[in-house]
Amino acid sequence: MAEDSSKKKAKVLEDLGLGLYKQIEKGENPYVTVPIRGLSNVKYSKEKGILTLGSGVSRRYFLNVGHVRKFVQTVAVASLSKNLIESDKHTSLRDVFYQMRRTIPGTKVDVVDDQTETDKAVEDLELITDLTREQLHITANKNGAVAGDVIIEDRGDTIDWSKMGSGGWAIPSTTEDITFKKVNAKFVLYMEKAAIWDRLNEDKAWKKLNCVIIASQGQATRGIRRLLQRLYTEQNLPVYVLTDFDPWGFYIYSAIKFGSISLAHASEKLALPQAKFMGLLADDIERYDLKRHLIKFKDVDSSRLQQIKGYEWFRNNKAWMEELNKMEKIGSKVELNAFTAKGLSFMTEKYLPEKIKEDKFLD
Amino acid sequence: MAEDSSKKKAKVLEDLGLGLYKQIEKGENPYVTVPIRGLSNVKYSKEKGILTLGSGVSRRYFLNVGHVRKFVQTVAVASLSKNLIESDKHTSLRDVFYQMRRTIPGTKVDVVDDQTETDKAVEDLELITDLTREQLHITANKNGAVAGDVIIEDRGDTIDWSKMGSGGWAIPSTTEDITFKKVNAKFVLYMEKAAIWDRLNEDKAWKKLNCVIIASQGQATRGIRRLLQRLYTEQNLPVYVLTDFDPWGFYIYSAIKFGSISLAHASEKLALPQAKFMGLLADDIERYDLKRHLIKFKDVDSSRLQQIKGYEWFRNNKAWMEELNKMEKIGSKVELNAFTAKGLSFMTEKYLPEKIKEDKFLD
Repeated sequence: MAEDSSKKKAKVLEDLGLGLYKQIEKGENPYVTVPIRGLSNVKYSKEKGILTLGSGVSRRYFLNVGHVRKFVQTVAVASLSKNLIESDKHTSLRDVFYQMRRTIPGTKVDVVDDQTETDKAVEDLELITDLTREQLHITANKNGAVAGDVIIEDRGDTIDWSKMGSGGWAIPSTTEDITFKKVNAKFVLYMEKAAIWDRLNEDKAWKKLNCVIIASQGQATRGIRRLLQRLYTEQNLPVYVLTDFDPWGFYIYSAIKFGSISLAHASEKLALPQAKFMGLLADDIERYDLKRHLIKFKDVDSSRLQQIKGYEWFRNNKAWMEELNKMEKIGSKVELNAFTAKGLSFMTEKYLPEKIKEDKFLD
Repeated sequence: MAEDSSKKKAKVLEDLGLGLYKQIEKGENPYVTVPIRGLSNVKYSKEKGILTLGSGVSRRYFLNVGHVRKFVQTVAVASLSKNLIESDKHTSLRDVFYQMRRTIPGTKVDVVDDQTETDKAVEDLELITDLTREQLHITANKNGAVAGDVIIEDRGDTIDWSKMGSGGWAIPSTTEDITFKKVNAKFVLYMEKAAIWDRLNEDKAWKKLNCVIIASQGQATRGIRRLLQRLYTEQNLPVYVLTDFDPWGFYIYSAIKFGSISLAHASEKLALPQAKFMGLLADDIERYDLKRHLIKFKDVDSSRLQQIKGYEWFRNNKAWMEELNKMEKIGSKVELNAFTAKGLSFMTEKYLPEKIKEDKFLD
């Protein structure tokens, strides 16, 4: 099946090349059509509950002094990616830059001078082919760990997430190709902080609560987001997100749920509109007596909050706006770590079971 | 044995408390003796080949307005750590702050106001007790992954590093308590970049070269450094370090080999003077035709280079100074990723085997 899908992906890239070839044969000026990226062309789809790209597109011509550089870069990335897929190898964005950095024969012109050029060419290729970077065999940063009563297969290895000691399985940059063999869990708990994960893992919270625990360190990587989405869509596991009470934590949740602005074109493969927010919420501060752990907002926190309040998908959501207004009024953040003050295992034994039992989540 | 060592550690902390209690009983002003930290008291031990703390110490008295706050914090951390050890739980530095953040009964004074206070108290306790933070059950940041033909035991789980798919085993913040069950490897290869690790892991370089591959993302965590040291001292595996050709890469190597300035007191548990530098070196640029991949130094790179040249352990090492002078002359850096331009598997198939065969390393 994996081989099959490789052939399909290579075919998409081949067709792109053949299309250009035909344009040349007909004596036309070869071009590629690229959807426009950026906030101006990002829409929130109420129906799908995710960020999507609008219909704006631009054509990029070979015989156009302003276009030729980008045109060549896009075609060069397509060729590189086809080779990667066919040889079943993966490479990082940084490495793509080095592999494309060569002088065009007979000239003094380099195909690329800077990594921002290859990064953009890769994103363009995602848009043109409707294949994700992962499917193009180009990897992003790796980060994060997972534990739970789950057995997967990856590159021929059988991996038991319940037997990973204190470390967990390191989540790879591409989670596209792993296969779920056994999944004994009722839900997935994702958190933004590795230290919280360590604590929950030591408590074997995944066993006690019958769940899968996943942590990044900061913003969730694409590998993590795709993994969450696959656990939901393929294994029917609800996904709960656990972050600090601050605008940054809320945006981490927003990116997992609705997709992110910069990757709006990949929302279908990455976003999870059914994700639920496990807290921290404003009411938890009172309820769990966390007042003394409030940390006053700095300017950068306040302005981030204002920015988030302006996003369409928050602005049109009453429950969320109420929550953000409460945050503004409080003018302080609270970290998940504050629960430790109530006992090392407070989260495992009290907070998480209570939240799950109540089954009331901000949507 | 683990239980035995727990009892020993708890005893060290208990003795600290008992000592203070006796001082009080005798009507003395209770104090603790703390070695002075900071560059002024950091020495390079030629004999041991690592950074160590000098003999400077200071006494911290309870009945001294300038000392009492730090005195109380140190004792409070000792008490917290004793509880952690006895309940066999671990907690992060951030969580230590929250657990210690309480008001002293009958006063309006908080034990701590800021995490920098608890962080320092933990470091002081390391110095006073000669136990590392890991041994005190306080964890640092977690980061990095490992693969190789090695089987370990950790918290009752048997973990096979050769069957971790594309992800690897996530290296925990504390690698103190893992047990090596089977080690089939000739050496350890540590690299600063996760993307390089991904590439080598996909090539199964650890199988082809019969080694263990370990990556962090940037500076090696304490968990990684301790793991490297244990693989060398307990398993007799030479450790090779692979970094970019720039002052930052060289300092990553320096910290692994000699210890770091801020953790000079923990060098004995973390440093590995026998570590060898696998490159990139100045001569590799010519040899592997990497000239076109030179990236000109920014001011921050140049000044970092000057700083490193000033460190005693470099200044008195002829081979290293020659290398650093070459770097200064070149005035540019080269990234490991540049090898990708020569073929995706160039490192696995050519660079690494050649370096290992030659067996000539900067020492």
